[in-house]
Amino acid sequence: MTSLEAQAPSMSVLSSEECYTLLGTRHIGRLGVIAEHYPLIIPMNYALDHRVLVVRSQPGVKLSNTDHANVTFQVDDIDDTTQSGWTVLVRGLAEEVTPDHSDHIIENTHHTNLTPWAPHSGSHWVRIIPQAITGRRITPGTDPH
Amino acid sequence: MTSLEAQAPSMSVLSSEECYTLLGTRHIGRLGVIAEHYPLIIPMNYALDHRVLVVRSQPGVKLSNTDHANVTFQVDDIDDTTQSGWTVLVRGLAEEVTPDHSDHIIENTHHTNLTPWAPHSGSHWVRIIPQAITGRRITPGTDPH
Repeated sequence: MTSLEAQAPSMSVLSSEECYTLLGTRHIGRLGVIAEHYPLIIPMNYALDHRVLVVRSQPGVKLSNTDHANVTFQVDDIDDTTQSGWTVLVRGLAEEVTPDHSDHIIENTHHTNLTPWAPHSGSHWVRIIPQAITGRRITPGTDPH
Repeated sequence: MTSLEAQAPSMSVLSSEECYTLLGTRHIGRLGVIAEHYPLIIPMNYALDHRVLVVRSQPGVKLSNTDHANVTFQVDDIDDTTQSGWTVLVRGLAEEVTPDHSDHIIENTHHTNLTPWAPHSGSHWVRIIPQAITGRRITPGTDPH
């Protein structure tokens, strides 16, 4: 009986090109915002206006802490069974879209047609302008069978 | 032809009991840690020692920013198609397990048998002691067909 050698899982760093491509394949991610002395994590759906993330938010703790603040947006696709997958983290600046923005930006934002999935959560449009994007992929190992 | 009335999606707040029960149903969550002026979000697997979350971490930016710091741990189960599901957010204090801890705590931590899923990521054991737990569930609406 021959037994194949076990292969350990491996982790690889994704290029920013790969990260942006992966962002385009999902619809739900998690906004990270520093509020009440904690790094709050709030799942929400998103759309892309080229490389800018568009989310919708309600007035309140989330919005008041995101506007012009350092936020993150994390998107992943992880298979719990094989414990493999990828994760992308955008570090960016959040900006609420107001009538003061140029028509061009307002138009592009609304053209994403983003409908918020959480009820009563989307009266405001927020753009997250990426300052950095990083990502990793974990490829599963193999068992020696 | 009769048409049923459309039902809007609804959001409900989960009790802390429900939140802890849901934490026990998943294996992968996301650690939130404030580092480099951003709320970093790092997916990782976890185990529970009663109500304490146990994760494994490697030395480096993550660990040095988590020890004795305010962190969060977020777990969800969201169905992208029906745009429904739940999310639970633990706000807690992270504590690296060291030989200075009582034998009881060290034993309970190791007894979770947590194996880190990311390669080279688990030389340290970290306990996240919950200070608050909150959660929400979104029930999908129905289309008027």
